[in-house]
Amino acid sequence: MRIAILIFDKLTALDAVGPYEVLSRLPGARLEFVAKEPGLKATDSGALSLHAQRSLAEVEPGDVDLLLVPGGEGNRPMLDDEEVLDWVRQVHSTSEWTTSVCTGSLVLGAAGVLDGLRATTHWAFIDALSRFGARPVSERVVIEGKVVTAAGVSAGIDMALTVAAEIAGPDVAQAIQLGIEYDPQPPFDAGSPQKAPPEIVEFVRGQGS
Amino acid sequence: MRIAILIFDKLTALDAVGPYEVLSRLPGARLEFVAKEPGLKATDSGALSLHAQRSLAEVEPGDVDLLLVPGGEGNRPMLDDEEVLDWVRQVHSTSEWTTSVCTGSLVLGAAGVLDGLRATTHWAFIDALSRFGARPVSERVVIEGKVVTAAGVSAGIDMALTVAAEIAGPDVAQAIQLGIEYDPQPPFDAGSPQKAPPEIVEFVRGQGS
Repeated sequence: MRIAILIFDKLTALDAVGPYEVLSRLPGARLEFVAKEPGLKATDSGALSLHAQRSLAEVEPGDVDLLLVPGGEGNRPMLDDEEVLDWVRQVHSTSEWTTSVCTGSLVLGAAGVLDGLRATTHWAFIDALSRFGARPVSERVVIEGKVVTAAGVSAGIDMALTVAAEIAGPDVAQAIQLGIEYDPQPPFDAGSPQKAPPEIVEFVRGQGS
Repeated sequence: MRIAILIFDKLTALDAVGPYEVLSRLPGARLEFVAKEPGLKATDSGALSLHAQRSLAEVEPGDVDLLLVPGGEGNRPMLDDEEVLDWVRQVHSTSEWTTSVCTGSLVLGAAGVLDGLRATTHWAFIDALSRFGARPVSERVVIEGKVVTAAGVSAGIDMALTVAAEIAGPDVAQAIQLGIEYDPQPPFDAGSPQKAPPEIVEFVRGQGS
């Protein structure tokens, strides 16, 4: 299973690293961080950069079994970057899985991957999906054949475990979940706009991700 | 709030990046990745490296308000590295918070920080804590005054939200939780040895983290 994570400047770190932690534990997985230009890509919070080993031009689209596109404010320029979108389209034409976390689904949408499909993204950007012909749904992980979109940031962990179970079976996915001790116990129950206090929803809306 | 995340070769990526994603969203937070020697540190799964901006020698211990030590098999050499342990001790002597994720607590233990305290770590390593005078407990996040230890890997997200609430209040912590859409819905309930099927617990035990 050859996995490419498409990164860019001002990505959201956990969007990429949550699924990375899960998928890199799949037996036989070969992961690679790729970008339009190789090198260090700053995350949106600043202190951390992730390193892209190869440029998109160096990665044969047919060599990618699983594509993951994370989110972050820095992916907006990719929405009309035909070089990136063409590469995504080509990868998708032969991939086994085409996935996104958070606003990474906007990139899949701009590439035409989500046309006519149910899809999700970060809750604050859910309406933006319809302009790509997708049917936005407020679910944590949305599976449409080989296209899997996740909600905001931390949802990538749930998405990756879901896909890991599809790829390698539920025993392997559960072993990974146990290995990363993913038995979540957040101190608050404010992780979705349905659950958070309304004034906090308003405060966060528009901050982006 | 000046935050230092102590990294090293073969760290577990999510141990560091989960709390990073939370703590970097604290108003006024200044985060830095530090290491014995600066530069790129490979994560234990290989494809991803994290960059340490400064060496421990360059970081004045009194300048660190919050120390976070992540886990990963690569931290074992630090357990008898007096340069690292001295630095941790000095930081702890003036820190507002001294924290760990996963086997990062072994480093705090080796530095003497956990002596007589309740503490936790990755479930597969919980017994190792007693050799440092700590009282091992199987809890997700353990708070002992300013010393906060988290269970394995993904527990760092819960720990960081807990500490964020202590630092900036519950409204800010909930806004961060909503921003990262941390409304966990894992596809299985196998995230702790109490919940996972016994044969999966045995399979994972000893793989380490």
